[in-house]
Amino acid sequence: MSVCACTYNIVLGILVLSGLVLLPVLLPVAATDDNGKSAATTSNGTFSDLEKLSMGNVKSKSPRLWAFLLALYWVSFVTYYLLWKAYKHVSGLRADALMSREVVRPEQFAILVRDIPPVPEGQTRKDQVDSYFKTIHPETFYRSMVVTNNKEVNKIWKELEGYKKKLARAEAIYAKSKTTGKPEGARPTNKIGFLGLIGKKVDSIEYYNAKINEVTPKLEVEQKVTRKEKQQNSALVFFTSRVAAAAAAQSLHAHIVDKWTVTDAPEPRQLIWSNLKIKFFQRQLRQYVVYVLVALTILFYMIPIGFIAALTTLDNLKKLLPFLKSTVNIAAIKTVMEAYLPQLALIIFLALLPKILMCLSKAEGIPSQSHVVRAASGKYFYFIVLNVFIGVTIGGTLFSTFKTIQKKPDSIVSILASSLPLNATFFLTFVALKFFVGYGLQLSRLVPLIIYHLKRKYICKTEAELKEAWFPGDLGYGTRVPGDMLIVTIVLCYSVIAPIIIPFGVVYFGLGWLILRNQALKVHVPAYESYGRMWPHIHTRILASLILYQVTMFGYFGVKKFYYVPFLLPLIILSLTFGYVCSQKFYRFFRDAALEVACRELKEAPNLEQIFRAYIPPSLSSEKIDDEDFQDALSQVSRSGSFV
Amino acid sequence: MSVCACTYNIVLGILVLSGLVLLPVLLPVAATDDNGKSAATTSNGTFSDLEKLSMGNVKSKSPRLWAFLLALYWVSFVTYYLLWKAYKHVSGLRADALMSREVVRPEQFAILVRDIPPVPEGQTRKDQVDSYFKTIHPETFYRSMVVTNNKEVNKIWKELEGYKKKLARAEAIYAKSKTTGKPEGARPTNKIGFLGLIGKKVDSIEYYNAKINEVTPKLEVEQKVTRKEKQQNSALVFFTSRVAAAAAAQSLHAHIVDKWTVTDAPEPRQLIWSNLKIKFFQRQLRQYVVYVLVALTILFYMIPIGFIAALTTLDNLKKLLPFLKSTVNIAAIKTVMEAYLPQLALIIFLALLPKILMCLSKAEGIPSQSHVVRAASGKYFYFIVLNVFIGVTIGGTLFSTFKTIQKKPDSIVSILASSLPLNATFFLTFVALKFFVGYGLQLSRLVPLIIYHLKRKYICKTEAELKEAWFPGDLGYGTRVPGDMLIVTIVLCYSVIAPIIIPFGVVYFGLGWLILRNQALKVHVPAYESYGRMWPHIHTRILASLILYQVTMFGYFGVKKFYYVPFLLPLIILSLTFGYVCSQKFYRFFRDAALEVACRELKEAPNLEQIFRAYIPPSLSSEKIDDEDFQDALSQVSRSGSFV
Repeated sequence: MSVCACTYNIVLGILVLSGLVLLPVLLPVAATDDNGKSAATTSNGTFSDLEKLSMGNVKSKSPRLWAFLLALYWVSFVTYYLLWKAYKHVSGLRADALMSREVVRPEQFAILVRDIPPVPEGQTRKDQVDSYFKTIHPETFYRSMVVTNNKEVNKIWKELEGYKKKLARAEAIYAKSKTTGKPEGARPTNKIGFLGLIGKKVDSIEYYNAKINEVTPKLEVEQKVTRKEKQQNSALVFFTSRVAAAAAAQSLHAHIVDKWTVTDAPEPRQLIWSNLKIKFFQRQLRQYVVYVLVALTILFYMIPIGFIAALTTLDNLKKLLPFLKSTVNIAAIKTVMEAYLPQLALIIFLALLPKILMCLSKAEGIPSQSHVVRAASGKYFYFIVLNVFIGVTIGGTLFSTFKTIQKKPDSIVSILASSLPLNATFFLTFVALKFFVGYGLQLSRLVPLIIYHLKRKYICKTEAELKEAWFPGDLGYGTRVPGDMLIVTIVLCYSVIAPIIIPFGVVYFGLGWLILRNQALKVHVPAYESYGRMWPHIHTRILASLILYQVTMFGYFGVKKFYYVPFLLPLIILSLTFGYVCSQKFYRFFRDAALEVACRELKEAPNLEQIFRAYIPPSLSSEKIDDEDFQDALSQVSRSGSFV
Repeated sequence: MSVCACTYNIVLGILVLSGLVLLPVLLPVAATDDNGKSAATTSNGTFSDLEKLSMGNVKSKSPRLWAFLLALYWVSFVTYYLLWKAYKHVSGLRADALMSREVVRPEQFAILVRDIPPVPEGQTRKDQVDSYFKTIHPETFYRSMVVTNNKEVNKIWKELEGYKKKLARAEAIYAKSKTTGKPEGARPTNKIGFLGLIGKKVDSIEYYNAKINEVTPKLEVEQKVTRKEKQQNSALVFFTSRVAAAAAAQSLHAHIVDKWTVTDAPEPRQLIWSNLKIKFFQRQLRQYVVYVLVALTILFYMIPIGFIAALTTLDNLKKLLPFLKSTVNIAAIKTVMEAYLPQLALIIFLALLPKILMCLSKAEGIPSQSHVVRAASGKYFYFIVLNVFIGVTIGGTLFSTFKTIQKKPDSIVSILASSLPLNATFFLTFVALKFFVGYGLQLSRLVPLIIYHLKRKYICKTEAELKEAWFPGDLGYGTRVPGDMLIVTIVLCYSVIAPIIIPFGVVYFGLGWLILRNQALKVHVPAYESYGRMWPHIHTRILASLILYQVTMFGYFGVKKFYYVPFLLPLIILSLTFGYVCSQKFYRFFRDAALEVACRELKEAPNLEQIFRAYIPPSLSSEKIDDEDFQDALSQVSRSGSFV
């Protein structure tokens, strides 16, 4: 949570500090120049009041441009300062959380071993892993858990769980029907055909009980088969202390580097079992294939988005579909259409993508769910920045440009100069739409609330079902973060060109912060805690936005024929240096556990058995309540074998 | 040693296997084509028999070029196969050496800690380091040694050692003069002024004794001051086992990454004490500054080298200095000049560079001497490949090209096509000269032998002096390896264009292998053992040569208007993939110690005290024979403080 709140804090900080200086200084500077009348004759009519307040209104070569240049420096330095402070802060928070003396986190005691070589003759996989790690870590090795292929067993387990749920529900209905007037009650029934709509009618409680009795032994057999025969080339290894696990996770184990590769273990609920068996070079191959696929996706989506943005400006619509002219010229409709038409198409369009990116990221072979989300989020960020921000700016410009260029090819530069502020209007409304629609509907949880009450009234019968219905799910970092980052990019990039966008940004992030804070504390249940691992990701992307901003401004000052443009070069170099220094100083701690943090002793000696059990997937534990002889069954070796 | 021998083995293997196929196939294919008469009319006269055997003799678009294309594939696959085998072999050798159960290597028990934060109030540096590591590694921490600034103490120690040597020498002379005829002997004398040439004459034995008595207490005082007041922000930390040290060296210690940075400790005699205090970001800054300096050096040397190569072709000399014409036209002189004139300038020129590169590499802040040598060697490789190989090829061509281009600009392509084989002659003689001059003089150790005998007769008087005179020094990896790599590059790049170069390469590396084997076993004393750490370096450079070769050939086939050139693209991609896979599979083990290797127990428990003492520089040990209370004095804390 702290990362997300921290992001909102720092973005708010950047925007407020920038706005305090930029708004009172740049707006008068821009408004009192009279470029709008003399130079922008090619696009008169579309120039509204907003553009008078932007940098587009300032004459070329004007000394007033110095104010905008200095404003850029101010925004950059504010960003550096706040980013630095935030990185230090989050790094400290992460250290505090990880060195906590109260909370036992199973993942701090385990490492994940992949690419284990084939089992030697006459040994089991478990023997192999145990003897290997016992030799290397004789004093700190606790035991190991060989990863198995759980596909079959999960399927059967899910079936069983489904029947159990339905049984509970049927019993609840039956219990409710036993009113005082009718003490014997009405036994619920159901049809056994497709979706319970066709087929023979049976007594639900009896039917589900029979089904459970039928599936349970099947599950037990499959569990045994899984444990014994479906062992993979991967294992979890547990240590007796946090510092031993942290050191082991960072050390090279085998002298052939692609064997016995170790990493820190993810949280139990984050572990993606099906990805663990993928081999070293296959992982890398998959990664590159996914990167190429994503790059292709980004490039091919560019075309339709650019096209839509270009088509759906009102002027173009009128030209292309003349029969609309009469309708569109009504003032009210015109305003609405002008503001929301191009953006709506875009927003609907964007909703399709995140799921695909999640699947692609998972296919890379990443072992942890949160890492998959980070990877997908990164891809999504590049997608939306490239397509939405750059695509719209260039696409919207190109369409009207092509025709003009044919007539007088030397006018490209002046067209670009006037089109950048024009797109400011587009993005201003985009930001506004985002916080009205986005926050208004999604984050007020109106929709889930209605669904919850409907479910409660008509569907949910047991306590467990009620709980599940209310479970609000995760905060959806995967799409939320890149979405926010897009707003950051847009607001930053236009902060100097059209400073009026800053208050919109402040409102967006202010509201976001309030709602998020409220929800994070009261409603949302985080699916996992990654202790700020998201932060370096966000930091990099805010910095990338800043660099994009500086480069854009470099080009824009050039278009304005400002001779002192080279003064921006040191700023870009400074940004790159800042990013490098930050990643060198802080990043590795977000990847590896620092020993000085891991070495704090826990208040009580941790229950190693419990830590071990936390990693057993529910489908593999013999009963809901763990039975005592479980660990022997799982490992297929005597218990003494894995103890030191 | 094994790395160097291995390099020669594999290069020999590549050349022999390539030669066996290329020579019998390509030479007839090239010689029986008649391109030489029809197309190369612009440069007739300089075409000798050699060029008839090269690819330049094959007609453009000829289907015979298929043979050359397939030859390129053959050479590449031979190289992949041998490189892969060699990397595996060296990796195994390194593992064997590091897991040896007999030899105790101090560096396997120590780690180097840099960037220690300022000492907190009321603690000594030693306390700070000890308590930090004792908390993290309570069971395996042995003790620590704080790094000091030894500049002053080294100076005094060297002065003292000088006097001791001179005293020993004077005593030896005195003892020799006591012949049976003159039992009292003649006491040697010397002058105390500049270089012993002027000033008062004194009795040497008395004088040096007095000097030693004068300097010894000065040294003792300085030693105390150094230990107490000249402590730096760096330390060596010793562990009780190899596996503990290996794991600690690879683990992040502080959560602010640029504090308490750890690396594996270099061998004691390799440690560069003066570099240890340099801070994290300063090291990186220094590195980039050095890279820029080296890049500038490479680029600015390019101009004179290209100029010299262009000037010193015989034809150009005749044109520029017409008065030489009569002399030069004598057949014998012409042959000699033609062959050796341009190369001699180049070889002398190259002799200047290695020292500068060593200094620059040391200035990067690298803590280990062998690492400095590797770094310098890498820079030197890029220098000579860029300047000698590419510089000469392009430079030699450009000079004659400029004039022709002015007349008919479309002839550039045909000139390039004919000039590549022309340069083959240059490089053929370059390789020949290298092995005659290089091996003949340098490696036969004729010069050192003469110097040794002269010294023995006239200068050396004591045993120690004799030993020092014979001490042949290191093998000079820094310049030897890049020199060899240049030959590899040249021979590889011309192996298909002019296969006749292959036997020369075979002779060069065959002779080199014999001499090196002989010397390495009998004469040279390695200054340090890095257990194959040089290999990844050599591997990368052989592979870089191969890629340069493939790219060059890609261009050359294009010049020959061969339509199937794109068939070379998969080969280049394959080379890049091969390099990537090798570095992923093997490289990390050459940087970090694998725990499975470090965990082998030693035959006898190691003497930790002795390991610790191995790192005390001679200038800081109180006597030549270590005194017992030394460790307390060095650390300024009671001995019990550093034990666990």
